[in-house]
Amino acid sequence: MRVGILTGGGDAPGLNAVIRAFVKYAIVSYGWDVIGVEDAFNGLLESPRRLRAMTPRSCQGLLHRGGTVLGTTNHGDPFAWSTPAGPIDRSGELASAVAEEELDGLVVIGGDGTMRIAWRLMQERGIPVVGVPKTIDNDLAATDVTFGFQSAVDCATDALDRLHTTAESHDRVMFLEVMGRDAGHIALVAGISGGADVILLPEIPYDPARVAEKVARRVRNGRPFTLVVVAEGALPARPDGSAVPAGEVKQALKDGGGAGQIAMRAVSRYVDAEARLCVLGHLQRGGSPVAVDRLLATRFGVAAVDLVAAGRWGEMVRIHHDVVTGVPLAEATSSMRFVPADSQLIATGRAVGIEFGRAV
Amino acid sequence: MRVGILTGGGDAPGLNAVIRAFVKYAIVSYGWDVIGVEDAFNGLLESPRRLRAMTPRSCQGLLHRGGTVLGTTNHGDPFAWSTPAGPIDRSGELASAVAEEELDGLVVIGGDGTMRIAWRLMQERGIPVVGVPKTIDNDLAATDVTFGFQSAVDCATDALDRLHTTAESHDRVMFLEVMGRDAGHIALVAGISGGADVILLPEIPYDPARVAEKVARRVRNGRPFTLVVVAEGALPARPDGSAVPAGEVKQALKDGGGAGQIAMRAVSRYVDAEARLCVLGHLQRGGSPVAVDRLLATRFGVAAVDLVAAGRWGEMVRIHHDVVTGVPLAEATSSMRFVPADSQLIATGRAVGIEFGRAV
Amino acid sequence: MRVGILTGGGDAPGLNAVIRAFVKYAIVSYGWDVIGVEDAFNGLLESPRRLRAMTPRSCQGLLHRGGTVLGTTNHGDPFAWSTPAGPIDRSGELASAVAEEELDGLVVIGGDGTMRIAWRLMQERGIPVVGVPKTIDNDLAATDVTFGFQSAVDCATDALDRLHTTAESHDRVMFLEVMGRDAGHIALVAGISGGADVILLPEIPYDPARVAEKVARRVRNGRPFTLVVVAEGALPARPDGSAVPAGEVKQALKDGGGAGQIAMRAVSRYVDAEARLCVLGHLQRGGSPVAVDRLLATRFGVAAVDLVAAGRWGEMVRIHHDVVTGVPLAEATSSMRFVPADSQLIATGRAVGIEFGRAV
Amino acid sequence: MRVGILTGGGDAPGLNAVIRAFVKYAIVSYGWDVIGVEDAFNGLLESPRRLRAMTPRSCQGLLHRGGTVLGTTNHGDPFAWSTPAGPIDRSGELASAVAEEELDGLVVIGGDGTMRIAWRLMQERGIPVVGVPKTIDNDLAATDVTFGFQSAVDCATDALDRLHTTAESHDRVMFLEVMGRDAGHIALVAGISGGADVILLPEIPYDPARVAEKVARRVRNGRPFTLVVVAEGALPARPDGSAVPAGEVKQALKDGGGAGQIAMRAVSRYVDAEARLCVLGHLQRGGSPVAVDRLLATRFGVAAVDLVAAGRWGEMVRIHHDVVTGVPLAEATSSMRFVPADSQLIATGRAVGIEFGRAV
Repeated sequence: MRVGILTGGGDAPGLNAVIRAFVKYAIVSYGWDVIGVEDAFNGLLESPRRLRAMTPRSCQGLLHRGGTVLGTTNHGDPFAWSTPAGPIDRSGELASAVAEEELDGLVVIGGDGTMRIAWRLMQERGIPVVGVPKTIDNDLAATDVTFGFQSAVDCATDALDRLHTTAESHDRVMFLEVMGRDAGHIALVAGISGGADVILLPEIPYDPARVAEKVARRVRNGRPFTLVVVAEGALPARPDGSAVPAGEVKQALKDGGGAGQIAMRAVSRYVDAEARLCVLGHLQRGGSPVAVDRLLATRFGVAAVDLVAAGRWGEMVRIHHDVVTGVPLAEATSSMRFVPADSQLIATGRAVGIEFGRAV
Repeated sequence: MRVGILTGGGDAPGLNAVIRAFVKYAIVSYGWDVIGVEDAFNGLLESPRRLRAMTPRSCQGLLHRGGTVLGTTNHGDPFAWSTPAGPIDRSGELASAVAEEELDGLVVIGGDGTMRIAWRLMQERGIPVVGVPKTIDNDLAATDVTFGFQSAVDCATDALDRLHTTAESHDRVMFLEVMGRDAGHIALVAGISGGADVILLPEIPYDPARVAEKVARRVRNGRPFTLVVVAEGALPARPDGSAVPAGEVKQALKDGGGAGQIAMRAVSRYVDAEARLCVLGHLQRGGSPVAVDRLLATRFGVAAVDLVAAGRWGEMVRIHHDVVTGVPLAEATSSMRFVPADSQLIATGRAVGIEFGRAV
Repeated sequence: MRVGILTGGGDAPGLNAVIRAFVKYAIVSYGWDVIGVEDAFNGLLESPRRLRAMTPRSCQGLLHRGGTVLGTTNHGDPFAWSTPAGPIDRSGELASAVAEEELDGLVVIGGDGTMRIAWRLMQERGIPVVGVPKTIDNDLAATDVTFGFQSAVDCATDALDRLHTTAESHDRVMFLEVMGRDAGHIALVAGISGGADVILLPEIPYDPARVAEKVARRVRNGRPFTLVVVAEGALPARPDGSAVPAGEVKQALKDGGGAGQIAMRAVSRYVDAEARLCVLGHLQRGGSPVAVDRLLATRFGVAAVDLVAAGRWGEMVRIHHDVVTGVPLAEATSSMRFVPADSQLIATGRAVGIEFGRAV
Repeated sequence: MRVGILTGGGDAPGLNAVIRAFVKYAIVSYGWDVIGVEDAFNGLLESPRRLRAMTPRSCQGLLHRGGTVLGTTNHGDPFAWSTPAGPIDRSGELASAVAEEELDGLVVIGGDGTMRIAWRLMQERGIPVVGVPKTIDNDLAATDVTFGFQSAVDCATDALDRLHTTAESHDRVMFLEVMGRDAGHIALVAGISGGADVILLPEIPYDPARVAEKVARRVRNGRPFTLVVVAEGALPARPDGSAVPAGEVKQALKDGGGAGQIAMRAVSRYVDAEARLCVLGHLQRGGSPVAVDRLLATRFGVAAVDLVAAGRWGEMVRIHHDVVTGVPLAEATSSMRFVPADSQLIATGRAVGIEFGRAV
């Protein structure tokens, strides 16, 4: 057996741990050849190809190293390869490259978009693929959780701890913008873990006046500072209480300077308080994965070998109720996981006094 | 409603977060009086009683603070109160104290032993109790996971990261003894997360010669250092391969200087390598809880209020498949959770080359 | 003896440790009364006054707590008190308040501005003061180093570690903006400690083309990613190589969106690379002080007591060649410490390949 | 120029950062060949020799990696090479190897012992050497500070933070044994930084009854827990108050189970309190160096190149008053730096209430 392995989309803590587990298991226990493909599918499409034979030795130290040694990219969809003259379909070339390199299949580690590409490559070009899901936002419905998520949560929680003391010392309202374009899991979990007073999620269009009232109430209670966590996709509700339509969200965020800026401005209209904004940004992606993510990534890497060994091409690794198994890729990419309105976590947050910007 | 709250047994990161969540929710949303009882049940049994009215203000800063502001103790079973003349039953006095203080019930946060006491207090003395489980070892079958566990795992994983570089620089075999008297969850999870080469668990009596062979094999492969994680209850198998009987374990550990010492000596008999031992001990208990544990502890504290509010005395909070609910205390304390022989985590560990000291 | 203590200006990790050390030493060893004044001088100027008697007990847990329990503010200069009708001089009222509260003097912990106010209060109003310097930027010439600086450096270094892996995975140029409006010590020290490739300082107006050439050279050497640390006061040189005049700097930074934005745009004009910006901002101020700062802050707090006990009013605590002593306030506030062109640290940076944006 | 570089003695955080800085600077700026010698001098004495050509690429990622990629050993003195028949002098062979490998000199990174060997090699065998000091204990008089020290201090301070909460929750006396066989700098600095109540140093033979009195006093003051830091070379004074003679110390520590055990037993004789011991051991050596040590190690590596380039063989790098320079090796190895009785740090500790076990 000769298997290619690649990482696509944004990087996440734990990618290297998946690679390491896959390589060690596949080579030592099964004796396969494992070929690393550089920068997502690009390594197979560029000339000369950028491939490297992986060995257990090449994976030393990878368990706790952030990023991906194989490189990755957000560009390079083989079905819509960007050229000056517009996108072209290079999936046929990719299939030829896979054949020429005598790869029996590809293990593709990536997000939603990458999984969809992988599935099309299998369906339309006959390339056997096994998927390993990666999304820091944790918004894939097919798996209970993904690696990288907890590392991002820990980073955001640590940031809240830091902002807490400075907010308290200066009687300020501190806004912290964290990842979560479509789903607010990071903001929700980090907000509760970090003792935020307000959490604003993409799933709950918020009323700035309610948030301002929370700030004012805290002042009246002798707590003249407030911590507000804002997911990068959170927006105020329209005057009639409805959400900004999906199509307009991107533009609104761009025009408004990002969700944190928008929230700070909107809330400041209703309450007179010194406000500051902190945008965590790329700090959430980088760095060594926390133990939770190292474990999960290792389990995913091992499970990918098991799927390949069982000939279960076309499946994606996932974890459900603490058991790692496979799920058909077709199914895996079909739905996202949002924070439901009846989430027990939201109820927990409300119970400890967190404001979500909208009446229940 | 007037409710007492106390913490019993060894401390664990997250106890304060439970207290904080309970107090905030109970007082702000329900208007209850919440009375903190100091040092487990002692605060109700000593004269004068050591009780304190809890307020949201008294809980400021508790979310990320280790230990327990209420104090705790491993001594002080009301049914077997230690006196110079032998243990006496003071559970009746406790019931009187609860009545005199006009407490409608007690919220008891503690381990296995404390839960059993709580249950007896309800059955035999009619004191309404709600339990919140606490075990760093994560060995309670009634709940998928307990707070404090992940903090201990992170501490042990960090220790492995540290030992890794020094072991590698000096070509040493480093033994790390971690918590886990009866169940090896911490050793197992931290071992995989921290890249251990050998993991020794209470559930798997190990063959020192096998461990030594792993050390030697690594030397032959040009990796002349080895990291061994030893749970504090792990022991070598008897010559016939059987486990040391439970009754003898405690004595064996005491005579042998602890599981780490025993393992180091036993393995060193079979292989010539510079070996060093590190015992993590109390470092695993202390310090600020990691985000995972802050969240879980907050959820448990909130759920305890929900149980009391619903009149579900006699139940214990637990989490199952990421939903926090209640389970009858009778049931909750009846069984422990060990690492099963067919654990997917053990299979994962083996897949990445970890030796568990016994043939599969 | 009855002494007031207050903190002014922006908060810094270690303020609480100074307070704790002062209070413990002054009360236990000397039996003084120590009165905490809230929110810089405001606690003495507002009606009712906001003062609190400090006790060793009120300082428990302060050693490792960020921020300041006394509160602080960047507003509230008694000599130029802000009113709707313009600034007024309330220093006389302050002197009266000090007299009425029977304070023998004030211990003032703060930055450059606060020290100047303290000095004027002593000279013009006869209020005995002892100063304790606080500047995260470490730009006070009178002391070798200040507490808070190393905590900010550690925060920035950790951020570089995080950005490193993501930059490497994506072949990106990552810009990290750190504190340092006038002096670039944080950028310089964190940049070397965190393995930055380029460091841009306020003291060295940079040539964007040189920075771009460094990026390009790394690409040619097979390292297609670059880490750039930008102090918040760093600006490109004017076309003739000269610095932007001090008077224009603030406006330039405001118009340009901050030093990081300006640098990213300027460099991107000369090289085609995917660039991203991260602004650390308030994360550098908050959180628990690192051990270095806890020690220094404790030494400063103790030294402040020694100065008061010796009647050395009008002096400021400082450390020089690892010995903590006092220096006249007049002298202390007269000059700032910049990164000198012949700094050994800059030479060290150059030796390991760091680009500073200007030819030597 | 062709220079060998090696690391000797126990490992310390920052060794790799020295190597990286030396290699990058020597190769890129001077074009030298740099040859890594494995496992101290062993790489030159074993057959076949274990040498590796270093390149900037081989140093990627080394800045923040603990341990030493060159390997190290506490054995292997070329002047007293251990053999079954007793030690033999192989320094002549070493000189031959250096000549055969055409090395113009050796850069030797190591502790006291290694520096003395280096100096003898230069004097007696004519091998040009430049030394770089390494001692976690920070006990070399020739340099103000060494890399690795602050990383150990941070590790010990973090341990104290952890033990604090558990000690407080359980009303315990927690003993923490930290590094420092001859000099107590780590215990002193970490003790103050971590809020210890008692610090026991090798330089101050302690009276256990005094320590017990401190414990009792805290109980009386309503603080029924105590943190005691014990340097691994700290011993009780003899009944007459005198120190245990140097010759007997090693045996006393061995017989007594280590300094922590001895202290715990001795103190427990005078006060009835639940006591626990934690031995930090190898955790202090390992792991990523903190920013302070990365900077210092980088400066030392660069300075070593400067010394070689200037032909200043026979010197050792050192830092004094924040300037890195060279000092003759002869001088450098002649004296150790102990904690002086009139140390300002000890006075600071006493001021904040720390007990050192002996009357002033």
